[in-house]
Amino acid sequence: MIINRINNNRDLKKLNYKEKIELTNEIRKYLVETISKTGGHLASNLGVVELTIALESVFDLPKDKIIWDVGHQSYVHKIINGRREKVKKIRQFGHISGFPKTKESDTDCFNTGHSSTSISAALGMAIARDIKKEDYNIIAVIGDGALTGGMALEALNHVGSIKKKMIIILNDNEMSISKNISGMNELLTNLRLKKRYRKSNNKLKKIISSVPLIGQYLTYIIKKIKKTLKQLFIPGMYFEEIGLKYIGPIDGHNIEELEAIFKKAKNIDEPVLIHVITKKGKGYKFAEESPEQYHGVSPFNIDTGVVPSNNKTYSEVFGNKLCELAKENKKIVAITAAMKDGTGLSRFSEMFKERFYDVGIAEQHALTLAAGIAKNGMIPVVSIYSSFYQRGFDQVIHDICTQNLHVVMCVDRAGCVGSDGETHQGLFDLSFFKIIPNIVILAPKNFKELELMLEYAIKIKKPIVIRYPRGGEKKNHFTTTPIKFATLEKLKDGKDISIIAIGNMVSRAMDVATILEKQNIMCDVINIRFLKPIDETAILESIKKTKKIITIEDNTIIGGLSSSIKELIVNNNLNNIKIKSYAYPDKFIEHGTVDELEKKYKLDIQSIINDINKEVNHE
Amino acid sequence: MIINRINNNRDLKKLNYKEKIELTNEIRKYLVETISKTGGHLASNLGVVELTIALESVFDLPKDKIIWDVGHQSYVHKIINGRREKVKKIRQFGHISGFPKTKESDTDCFNTGHSSTSISAALGMAIARDIKKEDYNIIAVIGDGALTGGMALEALNHVGSIKKKMIIILNDNEMSISKNISGMNELLTNLRLKKRYRKSNNKLKKIISSVPLIGQYLTYIIKKIKKTLKQLFIPGMYFEEIGLKYIGPIDGHNIEELEAIFKKAKNIDEPVLIHVITKKGKGYKFAEESPEQYHGVSPFNIDTGVVPSNNKTYSEVFGNKLCELAKENKKIVAITAAMKDGTGLSRFSEMFKERFYDVGIAEQHALTLAAGIAKNGMIPVVSIYSSFYQRGFDQVIHDICTQNLHVVMCVDRAGCVGSDGETHQGLFDLSFFKIIPNIVILAPKNFKELELMLEYAIKIKKPIVIRYPRGGEKKNHFTTTPIKFATLEKLKDGKDISIIAIGNMVSRAMDVATILEKQNIMCDVINIRFLKPIDETAILESIKKTKKIITIEDNTIIGGLSSSIKELIVNNNLNNIKIKSYAYPDKFIEHGTVDELEKKYKLDIQSIINDINKEVNHE
Repeated sequence: MIINRINNNRDLKKLNYKEKIELTNEIRKYLVETISKTGGHLASNLGVVELTIALESVFDLPKDKIIWDVGHQSYVHKIINGRREKVKKIRQFGHISGFPKTKESDTDCFNTGHSSTSISAALGMAIARDIKKEDYNIIAVIGDGALTGGMALEALNHVGSIKKKMIIILNDNEMSISKNISGMNELLTNLRLKKRYRKSNNKLKKIISSVPLIGQYLTYIIKKIKKTLKQLFIPGMYFEEIGLKYIGPIDGHNIEELEAIFKKAKNIDEPVLIHVITKKGKGYKFAEESPEQYHGVSPFNIDTGVVPSNNKTYSEVFGNKLCELAKENKKIVAITAAMKDGTGLSRFSEMFKERFYDVGIAEQHALTLAAGIAKNGMIPVVSIYSSFYQRGFDQVIHDICTQNLHVVMCVDRAGCVGSDGETHQGLFDLSFFKIIPNIVILAPKNFKELELMLEYAIKIKKPIVIRYPRGGEKKNHFTTTPIKFATLEKLKDGKDISIIAIGNMVSRAMDVATILEKQNIMCDVINIRFLKPIDETAILESIKKTKKIITIEDNTIIGGLSSSIKELIVNNNLNNIKIKSYAYPDKFIEHGTVDELEKKYKLDIQSIINDINKEVNHE
Repeated sequence: MIINRINNNRDLKKLNYKEKIELTNEIRKYLVETISKTGGHLASNLGVVELTIALESVFDLPKDKIIWDVGHQSYVHKIINGRREKVKKIRQFGHISGFPKTKESDTDCFNTGHSSTSISAALGMAIARDIKKEDYNIIAVIGDGALTGGMALEALNHVGSIKKKMIIILNDNEMSISKNISGMNELLTNLRLKKRYRKSNNKLKKIISSVPLIGQYLTYIIKKIKKTLKQLFIPGMYFEEIGLKYIGPIDGHNIEELEAIFKKAKNIDEPVLIHVITKKGKGYKFAEESPEQYHGVSPFNIDTGVVPSNNKTYSEVFGNKLCELAKENKKIVAITAAMKDGTGLSRFSEMFKERFYDVGIAEQHALTLAAGIAKNGMIPVVSIYSSFYQRGFDQVIHDICTQNLHVVMCVDRAGCVGSDGETHQGLFDLSFFKIIPNIVILAPKNFKELELMLEYAIKIKKPIVIRYPRGGEKKNHFTTTPIKFATLEKLKDGKDISIIAIGNMVSRAMDVATILEKQNIMCDVINIRFLKPIDETAILESIKKTKKIITIEDNTIIGGLSSSIKELIVNNNLNNIKIKSYAYPDKFIEHGTVDELEKKYKLDIQSIINDINKEVNHE
């Protein structure tokens, strides 16, 4: 096996092309075998096997720097660079991450996770390199999807204008760009590199000038001919226009061709964009056929492929309920940003084509688009993952909330998301939304309550956030009362401790209360429902009764539920109150299962019970 | 005077072109006269007089919707639409805003303030219009600067792909695009509208095909010829490629031509981009010569123009100190996002050309660029206004802080900014930065302390925020001690009340303490310096001594200094503590002078003293 001889990118350089092709097969087999057991990002990694091998054959890591945009396609890179065995436990608690991490290896030069950051980071690194007068290559590898993100476009403009030596690999795996030009693939590549187009250019110019009929007419524009002719041969006109050298499109599965082009690109002292066409899921039949389904997978059987899970999720409940509401209410418009399946909006997109907008990776636009829709009298329902709302923070403040617009902001993947780790945790949203005036913040304790809240949100004419976690509801049978503005829901009545919890953590509160009951400690269990505006009266009533409070939230300890309750205590001059807050600490939370992380950060039932017992015994 | 007959856009429609030209002169005179007295945005408004008149002659407001990107160029629109007299008090407390506000007039259809939002908003409105099967025009007017903002580019891509009827006016006032094509201005306009290019297209195609030498060669690409020929005649190739109809460039000071084109654009059932060339500052000599200086002005003498103010600002102190530090420390790189002058970086940009980057309106890119620079061993110092950091929130979290990178984030215009009003207030930054792990947050009480903090920030290898207000330091003579990590500065020692203040508000705390001293109430005055990590030990010591606390901050009441202190009290089980927090309430704060707003929101000395006396008498 060649794969076993590859311990870092230097080892790659010893292989001939035949061996490298053999290696691609071994890596693909290894990827399918390991990811089928661990779960993880499959299709995108299968698509970049040749690209990664070619890149790391030509460039010298860690001296040269490769930044993987988004980063979920970095498994091949990890396998090559010392983490072959570790990939068997990728994304698991205490093991390596599914994204590039500088602390794992010096061949990971910049951490990624969210989309569209790589060009900015690469340009920054190039600027620093040049000031320090160092000499090496910096490469950003970015997908065609990520290139629609506003910050990538901002970065491209800057790259084109300041002309630092760097390479951008456009990993085009949707074939969307190539459709128009696929037949010219080889021609273009050769033309560009062999400077043949310059000759054609001169030839054509001469001919056109010599045609009397149009000759005079063209005197206006003869200077533009060179630029224009490029467009005849080069689909990357846009990139050239903004100041990048464009090479492509290249077959992203031909190592020899890729290496030849990378070697030439190395010697170009200005920014180059290399347009590479790859196939997502390449080499594993099921993944090739449905790359979307194999983007991020749970463990599966290799021979039969991924079997759709029967476990109902909050996303699904949201999507189905929205369909139901949209049948009655013709004003509802659904919006997402390249998360149609993930947010449960697939069915809506089919049922209400004219009222569904997937804007691609463009959270900022999605939110101000919603503001425009709301301003003109419709009811936009946006669904975006918690950590990606961070991208649209200004739009929520400036476009939605200053105008107090009725936009329903559904926050999927709120709280701890598990194996995607620190870049994807939804642990800040309660805090950053709470800062914003006019906003209403809700979190459901279970599916049923999500449905009620969505129904409620459609009616209340305000900017409104509903946040719910990845995956399904926690066990526990709840009765669920109707939603009333700024009103909490009391689930249990007790005299000893007030347990105040939000969303997904209400179930935890019930579990804790049930155990304590057996010890004759009786709890008020409060489902806060509205973090903002918070139900001050009812909370104060409970606090004054028990004088002991526990808050539980799947959010950072700073600025969320815990802060609200503590401020309430001080603002009301309450004395001799004991409060203990369960939340994630003020640090970035790594990957692992939700259970593992809850245990580590002492949000699990046992930790809470232990604390209480310690306290009780202490008294 | 024609201007006195114009009370809304319908009145414009009664004028002939000669009268409209006369009106432009009257409006320009009126603008210069009023803004020279009130201060405000001059150059941009002088640039759009004809554009506004032409737009509002052709379109019917409020039925048709015009969204002014950024919105500081909406004075002419306000003058035309019922607010001629009110403009005399524009941006003043209790009077009309310097930006479009839906509550002022139904001809203001969407509030703006920050850059690059108009296309998203317009598209949202178009989507709603079409679902409701209504029929009117929606126009976004956006400057060439704003078009570099990522969210505008996200929106453009979406506009091109879904083809809603809408008009984007590219108000190109830097002439940057026109330089290459100015000679072809008229030709292009006519060509495009009279469909002449199609004829030329066919003619040229025939000729090229008939030339045997290249005929065969061109069979590959004959289908691309139409597209390519457009490029010969149309500089807006990029816009056409992404799916917009491009018209232009047009002389933005020729009302007749503008109206003709707007009338034609009205009848186009797909998205149209009209490229209009205008001159910033047009008609007022000084403003034409230095449009940057006349972008936003304080009151000035019309005959002599703006005289540079002698009042030193925090921005200047920052810029000068950074120059001084950069002389010694070759690792310092300064970055801003189209705020070079405003943030005080002009001198730096001249002295250290190769270490200065103004990325344009692109905050997201600016921050991840800084992350890349830091990752590669240099020390980036970013200076951006507080309210624009909201645009880069995710980048601060995801790119800078997860990697714990040494990026110095200077937050200019923090706190109350005054007459720009709600969209520009810097009242959220303490709160949204505080949520983020790894970050250090500093605020200086005066110029000297800003210098010390900057010096300190260059040394400490962490993500670090320094926030300071618009304008100058408040009076008060301070001794200033060296900065020590997570350590507050005690400015006065007293036994009765602890006054804890941050940044600009430390001076207020001293004033209050001085007055109270005369009443024999002795205060601890604490300059908090580090909001994060906060100096818990020293604060607790003071609190335990006085049991009475006042906090003062120029930030929202949610999540800033006040929250930190209150949580500290609860976390330490302190009882019988009285605390009163002075901060801005949880609402968007309107325009007015800082003094007026502080008075209204009871942050002024007198309000604080009154409160304390009430409390004392009550005891």
